[in-house]
Amino acid sequence: MATEAATDETGELYEEFLSTVQRLSNVGYAQQVLNWDQEVMMPEEGTRARSQQLSALSAVGHELLTSEEMAGYLDDLEAADLDPEQEAVVREIRRKHERATRVPTELVQEISETTSEAHPKWKQAKAEDDFSIFAPTLEKLVELKKEYAEYIDPDKDPYAVLFEDYEPYLGLDTAEETLAQLREELVPLIEDIRESDVELATPFEGEFDDETQEELARDVLDTLGYDWDRGRLDTAPHPFSTGTQFDARVTTRFNPADPLGALTSTIHEFGHASYTLGLPDEHYGTPLGEARDLTVHESQSRLWENHVGRSEAFWERFLPAMKERFPQLEDATPRDVYEAANTVKEDNLIRVEADELTYHMHIVVRFEIERELISGDLDVEDVPEAWNDKYEEYLGIRPETDAEGCLQDIHWSHGSFGYFSTYSLGSVLAAQLYDAAEDDIDDLEAKVREGDFEELHAWLTDKVHRHGKRYTTDDLVREATGEDFTADYFVDYVESKYGALYDL
Amino acid sequence: MATEAATDETGELYEEFLSTVQRLSNVGYAQQVLNWDQEVMMPEEGTRARSQQLSALSAVGHELLTSEEMAGYLDDLEAADLDPEQEAVVREIRRKHERATRVPTELVQEISETTSEAHPKWKQAKAEDDFSIFAPTLEKLVELKKEYAEYIDPDKDPYAVLFEDYEPYLGLDTAEETLAQLREELVPLIEDIRESDVELATPFEGEFDDETQEELARDVLDTLGYDWDRGRLDTAPHPFSTGTQFDARVTTRFNPADPLGALTSTIHEFGHASYTLGLPDEHYGTPLGEARDLTVHESQSRLWENHVGRSEAFWERFLPAMKERFPQLEDATPRDVYEAANTVKEDNLIRVEADELTYHMHIVVRFEIERELISGDLDVEDVPEAWNDKYEEYLGIRPETDAEGCLQDIHWSHGSFGYFSTYSLGSVLAAQLYDAAEDDIDDLEAKVREGDFEELHAWLTDKVHRHGKRYTTDDLVREATGEDFTADYFVDYVESKYGALYDL
Repeated sequence: MATEAATDETGELYEEFLSTVQRLSNVGYAQQVLNWDQEVMMPEEGTRARSQQLSALSAVGHELLTSEEMAGYLDDLEAADLDPEQEAVVREIRRKHERATRVPTELVQEISETTSEAHPKWKQAKAEDDFSIFAPTLEKLVELKKEYAEYIDPDKDPYAVLFEDYEPYLGLDTAEETLAQLREELVPLIEDIRESDVELATPFEGEFDDETQEELARDVLDTLGYDWDRGRLDTAPHPFSTGTQFDARVTTRFNPADPLGALTSTIHEFGHASYTLGLPDEHYGTPLGEARDLTVHESQSRLWENHVGRSEAFWERFLPAMKERFPQLEDATPRDVYEAANTVKEDNLIRVEADELTYHMHIVVRFEIERELISGDLDVEDVPEAWNDKYEEYLGIRPETDAEGCLQDIHWSHGSFGYFSTYSLGSVLAAQLYDAAEDDIDDLEAKVREGDFEELHAWLTDKVHRHGKRYTTDDLVREATGEDFTADYFVDYVESKYGALYDL
Repeated sequence: MATEAATDETGELYEEFLSTVQRLSNVGYAQQVLNWDQEVMMPEEGTRARSQQLSALSAVGHELLTSEEMAGYLDDLEAADLDPEQEAVVREIRRKHERATRVPTELVQEISETTSEAHPKWKQAKAEDDFSIFAPTLEKLVELKKEYAEYIDPDKDPYAVLFEDYEPYLGLDTAEETLAQLREELVPLIEDIRESDVELATPFEGEFDDETQEELARDVLDTLGYDWDRGRLDTAPHPFSTGTQFDARVTTRFNPADPLGALTSTIHEFGHASYTLGLPDEHYGTPLGEARDLTVHESQSRLWENHVGRSEAFWERFLPAMKERFPQLEDATPRDVYEAANTVKEDNLIRVEADELTYHMHIVVRFEIERELISGDLDVEDVPEAWNDKYEEYLGIRPETDAEGCLQDIHWSHGSFGYFSTYSLGSVLAAQLYDAAEDDIDDLEAKVREGDFEELHAWLTDKVHRHGKRYTTDDLVREATGEDFTADYFVDYVESKYGALYDL
C-alpha cells in the first residue's frame, strides 16, 4: 500500500513537472516559428519588434527553466523511483537547468549585447577586408565565453564546456580524435586528388531559372517522401530547417549557375526535417520527442545529402525528372551528375562552397584555432596568419585576404565557439549509420535506384528518430549500430569513393 | 528634495512596470505571429502543436498580467504622481488586470474547452442545416458567458460586460442607441430601394484569374500608400490584418467571379493595417503604441473601404490600372464601377456578402438576439424563429434554412457575444471621421481622384493613430472631431449616397 501511494504521488509529481517542461518547450517552439518567419517572411522593418519579441520569449523560457519550482521537481524526482524514460527526461532537463542557473544573468546579458555589437563589426571587417575592425570584439567574446564556461564547470577545459553546448555527450576527446583522424587520412587523399589528372564531368552549363529550380526542389522532396501535410518549402538566404514533428519546414536557395547546389542543399535540409518528423508525436514537447542535439541531427542531413543524394544510384532515378524540367540537360548521364556532385574543388577557400571531402579541413582549421584561442595559446591578433598557414598545410591553398580567410563565416560574431566540429562528427556518424543500414536493408542501393525510400526511412526512424533524447549520443550510436562512435566508416567511404573517382 | 526623490522613485518604479508591460505585449505579439502563420502558412498537421504553443503563450501572458508583482505596480503607481500619458498606461493595464484576475481560472478553462467542442458542433449543424445539433452547446456557452460577466461585474448588465471586452469605453447604451437609430433610418431606406426601378451597372462579367487579381491587389495597396517595408500581402480563407507598427500584414482572398470583392476586402484590411502602422514607434509594446480597440479599428478599415474605395473619385483614379490588368473591362466607366460597388443586394441573407447598407441590419438582428439570449428573455431553442422573423421585418426577406440563417456565422461557437455591434459602431465612426477630414483637408475628393492620399494619412495619424490608447474611445472621438460620437453623419452619408443612386 505504501509503495502504491508513493508511486501515485511520484506519478502526479512527474505529470506536473512534465506540464512545466511542455510549457517551456512550447515557448521555445514559438521562438522557432518567429525565427522562421523572420528569415523567410518578415518585412525588413519588422526586425526591431521581432528582436524584442524573441528576447521576451527567451526571458520567459529562462525563468521557467531556472525557477525554484523546476529545481524542486528535479530534486524530488531524482530521489524518486522512475522508469527509464522518465529518468531520461529528468536527466535532460537537469542538464539544461544546471547550465542555465550557473551562469549569472548579467553575464548572459553582456554576451548577448556583445554579440549584437559584434555582428556589424564582423560585417564591416569582412566588407573592408580588415581583421582589425573585428579583432577587439572577438577578443572580448573569447574572454566572455571563457568566463561563461568557468561558471558552468570550473574544473573542466573551458573549450570542452563550450563544445558541450552543442554536443553534450560525445565528449571533446572524441571530437579531437575524430578531427585528428580526418586530418591524417584526408590531407594525403586531397593531395593525391590534387595531383591526379582525372577531369570529372561538368554537365551543368548555362543558366537555370529559379522558378524551374523550385519546381525541381519540390520534385526531389516528393521523391524522397517529404510529408507536405507536415511541412513546406521556402527560400531563405541561408538555408535551414526548423520545427516539430507536426510541422518541420525546409528552406533552400537558388543560384542560376548551380542547380545541383540547390538540390543537394534541399536534400540536406530534408534530412534534418526527416529526423524531426520521425520524432514520436506522443512525446511532443518533452525531451523524448526532441532531437538528440547537433551531431545526430547533422548525421541525418549528411546521410541524405551525401550517401543518398550524391550517389550514382540516386541520379539514375532522379535525372529523368531533372531533364523534364531542364531539357538542355538531355545529353547528361547519371554518371555525369554523379561526377559533378562529387568533384573536389581544389582551389576553394570557402567552407560553405566546399565539397564533401575538403569540407572537413575547413572544420579542422577552425577547431584547432578555436581551441588555441580559448586555451590562450593563440592571441586574437595572430588568428589571420594561423588561419592562412593551416589552409596552406591542409588544403594546399593560401587565402589572399582575410575576407575569404578567417572572416568568411558569421559564427564567431555570435560567440559560437565549439559548434563547428559537430558538422564533421555528423558526417562521420552518417557514414557509420548508412553502413549499418546497408547491412540491415536488402540491396539498399537498388532501392535508392528505384526511388523506394520506405525501408530507409523506417530504419532511421526505428534506430534513431523515435528515441528522441532517450539515450545519450554515445548510447544512441551503440543502440543503432552495435558499435561505439567511430570515424572508420567515413574514412573507408571517402577513400573508396574518391579513390575510384580519381583513379587513385 | 523630498519631492525630487519621490519623483525619481516613481520614475524608476514606472520603468520597471513598463518593462513588465512590454514583456506582456511581446508575448501577445508572438501569439499574433503564430496565428498569422497558422492562417496563412502552416501545413495542415501543424494544428495540434500550434494550439499547444498558443495556449502556453496565453498562460504565460495571463500569469504576467495577473501576477502579484503587476498588482503591486498598479497599486503603487495609482497612488503616485504621474503625467497624463503614464496615467493612461496605468488605466489600461489596470483594466486588463482586473478583468483577468476576477474570472477564476477554472471558468476560463471551461469556456475554452466548451468553445473547442462548439466549433465542430456548429460546423456539423450548419452542414446538415440542423440547429438542434448546435443548440445544447450554444446554451452552455450562453450560461458560461453570463457567469463570466457576473465575475467581472455583478452589478452590471452582463451583456454590457461582454460588450466591453470588445469596446471598453463607448458603453452599451451608445451601441443600443446607435443600432436603434440605424434600424429606424435604414429599414425605410432599404424598403424604398427595394421598390425602386433603378438598375445599377454590372460591369464585371466573366472570369478574372486569381494571379492577375493578386497583382491588382498589390496595385491598389501601392496606390493607397501601403508601406511594403513594414508589411506584406498574402491570401487567407478569412481575410484579416495583424501585426505591429513595424510589421502590419494584410491578407485577402480571390473569387474569379468577383474581382471587386477582393479589392474592397483588400482596401478594408489596408485600413486596419494603416492604423497599426500609424501607431507611434517609440511606444511599441505599451498601450500608447497600441490601437484603441475594435470600434476605432473598424472605423479605419471602413473609412478606407467605403468612403475612399467605394467612391466614384477613387475609381476615376484606379479603373485605368484595373483595365491594364483586365483588358476585358475596356468599356467600363468609373461610374459603372461606382454603381457596382454600391449596389444594394436586396435578396442577400449572408452578412459577409452584404452591401454597405443592408450590412447593418445583419448586425442589428444579431445584437437584438444576443441581448435577449443573455438577459434570458429568449431561449436558445427559439433563436431560429426569432432570427427569421427579424430578417423578414428589417430586410424583407426570410431565410429558408438555418444554415443561411442563424447558423451562418462562426462567432457564437467562439463564445463571442457582444462583438458584432462594433462593426456598426466602426462604420458610423468612419463617416463621422471622414466628414471631419473633409472639413480639414482642402478638396479631399479631388485628392482621392488624383490618388494623393498623403494628407488623409497625415490627418488620420494626427487625429487617431498616434494617440494609441492614450484617450478613451469617447475622448478620442471628441479630440478628433470636436463632437461626441454620433451616427448622424453615417445616416446623412448613406441617405444622400443611396438616394442619388436609386433616384429616391
